[in-house]
Amino acid sequence: MVKNRTLKVFAAAVLCVGLTSALVAKEKVYKLKMATTWGPTLSPLIDSAFNVAEYAKQMSNGRLDIRVDASNKHKSPFGILDMVKGGQYDLGNSASYYWKGKDINTLPFTSMPFGMTTSEQYSWFYYGGGLELMQKVYKKHNVLSFPAGNTGMQMGGWFKKEINSLDDLKGLKMRIPGFAGEIMSKVGASVTNIAPGELYTALERGNLDALEWVGPSMDIKMGFHKIAPYYYTGWHEPASEMQFLVNIKKFEKLPEDLRHILLKSMKLAAYDMYTKNYHMSLMAWDKMKNEYPNIKIKTFPKEVMSALKKANSDLLEEKTKGNPLLKEVLDSQKAYMTKAREWTKMSDYLYLKDNL
Amino acid sequence: MVKNRTLKVFAAAVLCVGLTSALVAKEKVYKLKMATTWGPTLSPLIDSAFNVAEYAKQMSNGRLDIRVDASNKHKSPFGILDMVKGGQYDLGNSASYYWKGKDINTLPFTSMPFGMTTSEQYSWFYYGGGLELMQKVYKKHNVLSFPAGNTGMQMGGWFKKEINSLDDLKGLKMRIPGFAGEIMSKVGASVTNIAPGELYTALERGNLDALEWVGPSMDIKMGFHKIAPYYYTGWHEPASEMQFLVNIKKFEKLPEDLRHILLKSMKLAAYDMYTKNYHMSLMAWDKMKNEYPNIKIKTFPKEVMSALKKANSDLLEEKTKGNPLLKEVLDSQKAYMTKAREWTKMSDYLYLKDNL
Repeated sequence: MVKNRTLKVFAAAVLCVGLTSALVAKEKVYKLKMATTWGPTLSPLIDSAFNVAEYAKQMSNGRLDIRVDASNKHKSPFGILDMVKGGQYDLGNSASYYWKGKDINTLPFTSMPFGMTTSEQYSWFYYGGGLELMQKVYKKHNVLSFPAGNTGMQMGGWFKKEINSLDDLKGLKMRIPGFAGEIMSKVGASVTNIAPGELYTALERGNLDALEWVGPSMDIKMGFHKIAPYYYTGWHEPASEMQFLVNIKKFEKLPEDLRHILLKSMKLAAYDMYTKNYHMSLMAWDKMKNEYPNIKIKTFPKEVMSALKKANSDLLEEKTKGNPLLKEVLDSQKAYMTKAREWTKMSDYLYLKDNL
Repeated sequence: MVKNRTLKVFAAAVLCVGLTSALVAKEKVYKLKMATTWGPTLSPLIDSAFNVAEYAKQMSNGRLDIRVDASNKHKSPFGILDMVKGGQYDLGNSASYYWKGKDINTLPFTSMPFGMTTSEQYSWFYYGGGLELMQKVYKKHNVLSFPAGNTGMQMGGWFKKEINSLDDLKGLKMRIPGFAGEIMSKVGASVTNIAPGELYTALERGNLDALEWVGPSMDIKMGFHKIAPYYYTGWHEPASEMQFLVNIKKFEKLPEDLRHILLKSMKLAAYDMYTKNYHMSLMAWDKMKNEYPNIKIKTFPKEVMSALKKANSDLLEEKTKGNPLLKEVLDSQKAYMTKAREWTKMSDYLYLKDNL
């Protein structure tokens, strides 16, 4: 009798421990760390990182806990790819074209000169094979890569003098980094690199004649519109997509539901950054033009545009030589854009033409 | 001794039951039903509903289980608001302007003639006060309302003959439903309503001279391009946003994490539908124009556009008379669009102008 009862108690205890431990395992908290290129208040870029952390926490009931380290914390804004690859961080938030020096194939996933608009590019990423090509390029770095938000059209920059011909670009001291800088160099500009904190003074004192930053949403805080009245329309980054990086091994250790939560949080945060930046841009431009009514929106003359397009083509031809993967990505973008632009023209473009 | 042991066993049993039941409660499956206006294969519209169900299931590990009933199931495509309001369904997926007969204030949340583009409108919804106004309007129906995906620019329709003047619209037999139909009537067209399944034959036999459907993504299956060669650009629905409806009481019964999962799934599904439709549109248009190279993209002449704009303004003035809430929504859209359009012009529009 006693033996039998003891057995029953024992069995009940085993069942109880088994059940609760199985259930408690599901409540385990997974802690991930994300490093971003951006400073802690660089909105809207940094918002994507904070939003992913917030969405993941809310949807997982705290089981997916993402700590975001801005650049002031890790001190390595351009080391994100290396840190995620090496496992010091599980996640990263940056822009693909920052790795072009390390791996030129990463260049096209941010935005290409004379390339796709944001709607065209998201269609390419999610339905036109772009996302698959991005994984193909990042595979050798052992990371997964996803869209992290789009700035929309980046403006061509602030100029102190009007550009009426290609000659006006010759020797022009301009800050314009990256691939766009290479193009500007090729058409004769004197491209220089100056730290962001010194740009305003350099422009004011004439050490710079022109500079490119982002667009109204982020330019307004820099104050360039107070000292350079010509604001040129965009050509070099028509839809700059930021990027999340995910260490593959860390990703594979997550339970399936948390993987879905992470992936969907990133995808939503990306779209949302585009929308927020659109709002910030239109509000910032409204404020700028009201406070500085002498600002003029200008488009480069045809001669300049043609020269920039030619320099772009020439540079891309050089870079794709002997690089079939880069060629595959650029060809995919070009073929998709050719079809997409027809639709963009007959839809939004022709509508806007009659409703400006 | 025996008493003491019995007490201990009892206490352990209580603890065990308490722990497991608390943990099991977190594993409870919440079943929700969603009714959509669309048929089961009407992509991309129906995709938003299916995507929400899939995302929710994946992210909640099966705890949030949403069953989607397409219109062939519930047989009430235009009864969605009533069914969600009445609690027969927990969730709905439809378009806000379908309820304009019941409540005219729901009209502006889909798209307004000569209104915002998709990017402008999402900015308004999420950052310009639009979402708050939508809840204000839907509060009296005891439902929450959220964006559920955008068709982008809807085309002006397929016409058998070219429209060169306002006179060409007089007596023109056109299928164009809703508010746009009222406008077309006002400028002299003979607006008729014909069931979707009979449209092709009516157009072919001349019972219709023109008709409006959506855009290439959805028009292609209807085959209108085979018999009406003039494809007019859009004016009446520049960015039609679909809509999710949520029964408030059912929503409040969900645990907090599942509420977040539901809300984020809807928001992501909405953005994604826009992207998918963009892709489908550009692919469909590419196919159409290659197979039927005689299709001509046309824009209504200035005289017609002006008359449509005037009819639109006159009708809105009538409808807002004595309706301060409708006026509040329309004024909010107008004020936002005025600022947003400046940014749209200097960003995407001027870029496209040089890169078509």
